[in-house]
Amino acid sequence: MSCLKLGVPKGSLQDSTIELFAKAGWRISVNSRSYYPGIDDPEIECMMVRAQEMARYVENGALDAGLTGKDWIQETGAAVEEVAELVYSKTGLGRVRWVLAVAEDSSIQSVRDLEGKVIATEAVKMTEKYLAKHGVKARVEFSWGATEVKVPQLADAIVEVTETGSSLRANHLRVVDTLLESATCFIANRAAWKDPWKREKIENIVLLLDGAIKAYNRVGLMMNVRREDLDKVLATLPALRNPTIAQLSDAGWVAINTIIEEKTVRQLIPKLKGARAEGIVEYPLNKVVY
Amino acid sequence: MSCLKLGVPKGSLQDSTIELFAKAGWRISVNSRSYYPGIDDPEIECMMVRAQEMARYVENGALDAGLTGKDWIQETGAAVEEVAELVYSKTGLGRVRWVLAVAEDSSIQSVRDLEGKVIATEAVKMTEKYLAKHGVKARVEFSWGATEVKVPQLADAIVEVTETGSSLRANHLRVVDTLLESATCFIANRAAWKDPWKREKIENIVLLLDGAIKAYNRVGLMMNVRREDLDKVLATLPALRNPTIAQLSDAGWVAINTIIEEKTVRQLIPKLKGARAEGIVEYPLNKVVY
Amino acid sequence: MSCLKLGVPKGSLQDSTIELFAKAGWRISVNSRSYYPGIDDPEIECMMVRAQEMARYVENGALDAGLTGKDWIQETGAAVEEVAELVYSKTGLGRVRWVLAVAEDSSIQSVRDLEGKVIATEAVKMTEKYLAKHGVKARVEFSWGATEVKVPQLADAIVEVTETGSSLRANHLRVVDTLLESATCFIANRAAWKDPWKREKIENIVLLLDGAIKAYNRVGLMMNVRREDLDKVLATLPALRNPTIAQLSDAGWVAINTIIEEKTVRQLIPKLKGARAEGIVEYPLNKVVY
Amino acid sequence: MSCLKLGVPKGSLQDSTIELFAKAGWRISVNSRSYYPGIDDPEIECMMVRAQEMARYVENGALDAGLTGKDWIQETGAAVEEVAELVYSKTGLGRVRWVLAVAEDSSIQSVRDLEGKVIATEAVKMTEKYLAKHGVKARVEFSWGATEVKVPQLADAIVEVTETGSSLRANHLRVVDTLLESATCFIANRAAWKDPWKREKIENIVLLLDGAIKAYNRVGLMMNVRREDLDKVLATLPALRNPTIAQLSDAGWVAINTIIEEKTVRQLIPKLKGARAEGIVEYPLNKVVY
Amino acid sequence: MSCLKLGVPKGSLQDSTIELFAKAGWRISVNSRSYYPGIDDPEIECMMVRAQEMARYVENGALDAGLTGKDWIQETGAAVEEVAELVYSKTGLGRVRWVLAVAEDSSIQSVRDLEGKVIATEAVKMTEKYLAKHGVKARVEFSWGATEVKVPQLADAIVEVTETGSSLRANHLRVVDTLLESATCFIANRAAWKDPWKREKIENIVLLLDGAIKAYNRVGLMMNVRREDLDKVLATLPALRNPTIAQLSDAGWVAINTIIEEKTVRQLIPKLKGARAEGIVEYPLNKVVY
Amino acid sequence: MSCLKLGVPKGSLQDSTIELFAKAGWRISVNSRSYYPGIDDPEIECMMVRAQEMARYVENGALDAGLTGKDWIQETGAAVEEVAELVYSKTGLGRVRWVLAVAEDSSIQSVRDLEGKVIATEAVKMTEKYLAKHGVKARVEFSWGATEVKVPQLADAIVEVTETGSSLRANHLRVVDTLLESATCFIANRAAWKDPWKREKIENIVLLLDGAIKAYNRVGLMMNVRREDLDKVLATLPALRNPTIAQLSDAGWVAINTIIEEKTVRQLIPKLKGARAEGIVEYPLNKVVY
Repeated sequence: MSCLKLGVPKGSLQDSTIELFAKAGWRISVNSRSYYPGIDDPEIECMMVRAQEMARYVENGALDAGLTGKDWIQETGAAVEEVAELVYSKTGLGRVRWVLAVAEDSSIQSVRDLEGKVIATEAVKMTEKYLAKHGVKARVEFSWGATEVKVPQLADAIVEVTETGSSLRANHLRVVDTLLESATCFIANRAAWKDPWKREKIENIVLLLDGAIKAYNRVGLMMNVRREDLDKVLATLPALRNPTIAQLSDAGWVAINTIIEEKTVRQLIPKLKGARAEGIVEYPLNKVVY
Repeated sequence: MSCLKLGVPKGSLQDSTIELFAKAGWRISVNSRSYYPGIDDPEIECMMVRAQEMARYVENGALDAGLTGKDWIQETGAAVEEVAELVYSKTGLGRVRWVLAVAEDSSIQSVRDLEGKVIATEAVKMTEKYLAKHGVKARVEFSWGATEVKVPQLADAIVEVTETGSSLRANHLRVVDTLLESATCFIANRAAWKDPWKREKIENIVLLLDGAIKAYNRVGLMMNVRREDLDKVLATLPALRNPTIAQLSDAGWVAINTIIEEKTVRQLIPKLKGARAEGIVEYPLNKVVY
Repeated sequence: MSCLKLGVPKGSLQDSTIELFAKAGWRISVNSRSYYPGIDDPEIECMMVRAQEMARYVENGALDAGLTGKDWIQETGAAVEEVAELVYSKTGLGRVRWVLAVAEDSSIQSVRDLEGKVIATEAVKMTEKYLAKHGVKARVEFSWGATEVKVPQLADAIVEVTETGSSLRANHLRVVDTLLESATCFIANRAAWKDPWKREKIENIVLLLDGAIKAYNRVGLMMNVRREDLDKVLATLPALRNPTIAQLSDAGWVAINTIIEEKTVRQLIPKLKGARAEGIVEYPLNKVVY
Repeated sequence: MSCLKLGVPKGSLQDSTIELFAKAGWRISVNSRSYYPGIDDPEIECMMVRAQEMARYVENGALDAGLTGKDWIQETGAAVEEVAELVYSKTGLGRVRWVLAVAEDSSIQSVRDLEGKVIATEAVKMTEKYLAKHGVKARVEFSWGATEVKVPQLADAIVEVTETGSSLRANHLRVVDTLLESATCFIANRAAWKDPWKREKIENIVLLLDGAIKAYNRVGLMMNVRREDLDKVLATLPALRNPTIAQLSDAGWVAINTIIEEKTVRQLIPKLKGARAEGIVEYPLNKVVY
Repeated sequence: MSCLKLGVPKGSLQDSTIELFAKAGWRISVNSRSYYPGIDDPEIECMMVRAQEMARYVENGALDAGLTGKDWIQETGAAVEEVAELVYSKTGLGRVRWVLAVAEDSSIQSVRDLEGKVIATEAVKMTEKYLAKHGVKARVEFSWGATEVKVPQLADAIVEVTETGSSLRANHLRVVDTLLESATCFIANRAAWKDPWKREKIENIVLLLDGAIKAYNRVGLMMNVRREDLDKVLATLPALRNPTIAQLSDAGWVAINTIIEEKTVRQLIPKLKGARAEGIVEYPLNKVVY
Repeated sequence: MSCLKLGVPKGSLQDSTIELFAKAGWRISVNSRSYYPGIDDPEIECMMVRAQEMARYVENGALDAGLTGKDWIQETGAAVEEVAELVYSKTGLGRVRWVLAVAEDSSIQSVRDLEGKVIATEAVKMTEKYLAKHGVKARVEFSWGATEVKVPQLADAIVEVTETGSSLRANHLRVVDTLLESATCFIANRAAWKDPWKREKIENIVLLLDGAIKAYNRVGLMMNVRREDLDKVLATLPALRNPTIAQLSDAGWVAINTIIEEKTVRQLIPKLKGARAEGIVEYPLNKVVY
């Protein structure tokens, strides 16, 4: 049987990745003693790999496909197929930024002030490339962790990843510049991408992962509306997608069923009530595929 | 930008309140180190405040609105607008009673037997008012906690809050009288309530909180019914709200979609089956707004 | 009031049983200090009983009904009514096998090689019956636990229960034969089963437990389809149940709503998209009663 | 190299046994995935075995020696050498009793009232022997656990182990009779006990385990005493063992160093102070070997 | 038998109090379901009582004795015998201060600036007495908890207890004045204190508690010293207590054994080594009674 | 005041380092939110730093001194003063080895077989130096973690640190060669080491850390011996250090007090008993300074 070797990111993305696959329809069963989690699909073999190393192993064919951050694809410089961006994260935006940061009261105001300084970072190549682009010479040191606390005692500046900036603020750091915006990417080995079976398998996985991600931020909304109010109600709904309108037994009424972004509900429901919609019901979704 | 200062009750109501706001559409992010939780609505500023102190701070305008128990509004005697009662609680009824309780084998049988006795309670004013109403003189001592275990060693009787009575029974106490029934209330500062922007904001929040509470105890029910069975099936359904009836492609059938209280489902489904309903499906809800 | 005495299995099945009842519509509240959990139905009284002892106590009328494994019904030889098989389990298949296993490198290849050997097991009678059937004489020792690790130091072979076989593999054991396949059973006392009130109560409980189990593995699927594509889309859907097809306001379109097995979704959605279905939405279910 | 196969009791005695060996000088390293814990003595091989099964496996030579309760030695009827009683337990007395217990309000007052009744117990043989001794016929059922809660619904009486009686009281049970007092025993296989090397190894282990147990309940006590007060101070000390008396540089003073039972210290120190002892110091011990 | 009713402080002091009694020779066994912990001394009956309420119940004779803070004795104004101050605490100094604190950037600089302001505190009487002493009129509000976060939104100033000041700093508060220094006190009911049996029992308990507290901060130190170096070594040791000097078999050497404060060891050992002391050994203590 | 900037290793060594300092007499208080733990010595300022980065920051003077492994001193090539080796570890030997390991069934038998292969390791420089020494050319890839599981899918061999080898065995790896043995080292910045105040401070810290380490593996042993048995008993004791022998009041007896390695106690006590030593008592130690 054909089989797709899939890299699952170990570490901070691990739990949300496994949950996302569960929503998409694949149960990955992690065993704390093994780096080879089970999956209920005989056509896939999983391996846990660090996000930092994923692109390297997809590039050299040890894996056919995997999920990792755009940042680490660039940092490793690996030649892989970037199949799709998958913006997910249970607790935040799903997007991160790599920033140059210094102590709040540092005299450093721009990249040019880094000349001759020491910069600590986990992303040494990204930082060196950035400095080269600006013609600045500085010493870039690999940081094994806790990069934020190194300024100012152990380093003059850092290049660090941040989602909300709260960890930077808590460490009294000031952002000087943004080097890169990044999100999770589904990547494929280039040979695997040319193999028709593997490509279709990858595309189907991505279709369902994407359907699950869409469902995270969307809900279903049903309501009954008098025919005479229909236009007013439809005008209230976001124009994105046509809602499903069904005739009820009672000829004077229709039922509307639509999918909307969850964050708009709290503005929308008061307006729908104002437009005389009745029996407004919001229900949860597992997947949304347009 | 206008902003509503909202008090979130710290303590036993905290987790269910935050979950309720999440269901209603607002993500409150509590940080264990701060009493100012974040909220994903720039028009609201949250502060964690004890239920016992909430009414006091809403009254004096330190907060525009807040959630607390009816009991503590009365105990503090604060002059606030009681916007809505919100009966919620993840694990029980959402309603509590303040009762006068004594040891099972105590000779005290009614409030009149308290003359000259010692009563321990967290609600000193409520207890004193109650005694005064009955013309009884007794010593009321403020209890800093663990009130149930004070009888009979440290007090002759207690006035204590109870939801199911199980803690009273476990401590071998007998309820003599009920002083007050209480539930959670959404309260507003009186000046804030007169401000049009704040009032609309408060009303929208309450509308959505109420929609989420309704969804806790309700589920959706769909089924297909032959035209000839429709009346019988409809007679089986609770009369509360008209169900949505849609014509199916097959002219002999209609689809019924209705919202019912979860606790009635286990009686209802056997009856619906008996009335030849087919493909009965129960599904979960996020919000219900009539 | 009539009352059904119901045995809830203590131990490995406990949590999933309580969750299943919750899905079915009954809240069982376990108290760590009591073997008599509460239930929000005045017609039922619960008692926690070990699966191994359940059939014995249902047989002698201490309980009217209960849930236990088919294996323990046979092991105890209790004369009870097997009302329904309920294949549930949160984490696996819900079915288990009792197998004869030996050390990987043991010379034992079949039941016949057990002559004169020592076999450790929790199911002494099942093992003795099996040996008798094959005319083999061996010493069967009751094992108080950790049966898998007894081979080869403390026993030559074991008879042990397994769901996925992973524990056997981890202990380097080889399966020689399967003695019994088992799943959870809802059983009733024979006198209780003849009592009309108790029988109807039991049947209603089983109907709703079964509805909840069906919902574990199923999801709802809605989509909009052009009239002209309807046949193609319907051909794609599993033939099990007729989907609900409703006419939309726009005469060229219909809405399809159907219930399918969750594990088929990941194959189905790509095909539905290929058949031009639009706005495909998957939503979760609480109960499914055909 | 010669090697002693030693059974370590799995379950309630496990942690205190391993701690006792640590105090005695052997580090046993339990691995949650293995029943063969490591030990830092190449002359010993450990295996975790249930207390209930220990004597059986020491009898048949699968183990050379092991620790288990006297109760289970009797219940299994195994022919083993009982080398020493080791009364230890971190939290209590280290001794347990097997008692016949009934519901507080049961009419059963003595063993004779059990005729024709049902008795649940984990110790079936001990109970049957006890009934036979008293000429009583009753049905003894093996209990898989939670024996205390079986009275009165599932059994008329139980035979159960108890240390402090608190679990019996909490379940409203009344003790009718005591069948057996038990404590932990170090047992040896009879052939191993005749082997000189194994016997010496066993005796040394027991010597050090016993030294560690003695140290649990004892402390060291040092003080300085004037020559003229020496007799009065010595009269105050327990007569058990002669204290060590050393001359100090200052000819008028001696130092006393003695080992006493910890539970006597709180009575002793006030008396020693009364007898003019100075600089009284209590210090902890690891081992005491007289 | 005579019996002493002893109050054990529930809450922050609870664990360290129980540990202190264990060191002193009494095992208190707390049961999470009961406020009457067991104790292995038939002459004592324990009850868990809040520190805030302890003095009240010792005063009225519900308890014979108890441990609480000096602060709460004063706040309640209870007439009790203060037997001994017991400065203990596992993690800090054992002493606390009640301070008047305001926001770092508040204009309030002294108690006089409080005129007309709102002060939140758990110690209402202490605060009112303090204000009265300074002739200041302000509103004192009882705080149910989280007092530090009330400034400046909910109060202008607070009166709060602090050990290290770190919580005040973390909340950006500035200390304006200290109202009271407090430590744990062993208190007795005045009638109980006059009863000879109870008084002796109390004094013995206090003697041993004090001996255990001394041992927390002290260690034993032994070393061998040449006769000729003795004076120099003795000069190095703290003068507090005469060390025990014993003649060794070898006439040129003596052994010194002394008790010193643990915090001086790190300075002392280098000096003792410099003075040619040999075989320096530090050992732990359980109790020290001078 | 002079101050020593001290690096405390973050990560696997952290807890045992802080415990060791506590034993030595310094209380380091770690705060989960800060990398600057407090210490109860105004002459020291602590900072948490990864073992991998410690030497780098001691070399450049950001820290005056610190604790790290010999391995990381070499890997970074930092020019620092290696003051003392401190072999400690709560759970093991305190020494580790960096080994070259391959899959059990790999054809690689020696370093020479690595030509052209891929080696994953956290210690890139150490590995490259080792390969160069043997004239082998291979690709060394930095591993971000979980190095053991990379063979054989992601790498042909690894260079990894191991204490007991159990993790290697669990991953079915075979050790081919040892590159380096390592233990914890106390290192100092070279300029700091020349500063008299800092050097004395460092030497005193190391003296006390060493005294605490010695006490981990040693215990005190006291016994009383008849004069006539003294030589025999002394011959039994390890020759390392002269025991302290004190004359007792009873002229026929002496007391022996000695410090021995804990692991020898279990052999020694049976022999001492055989030599008629009496009242043998083993007691715990905090520090041992010869």
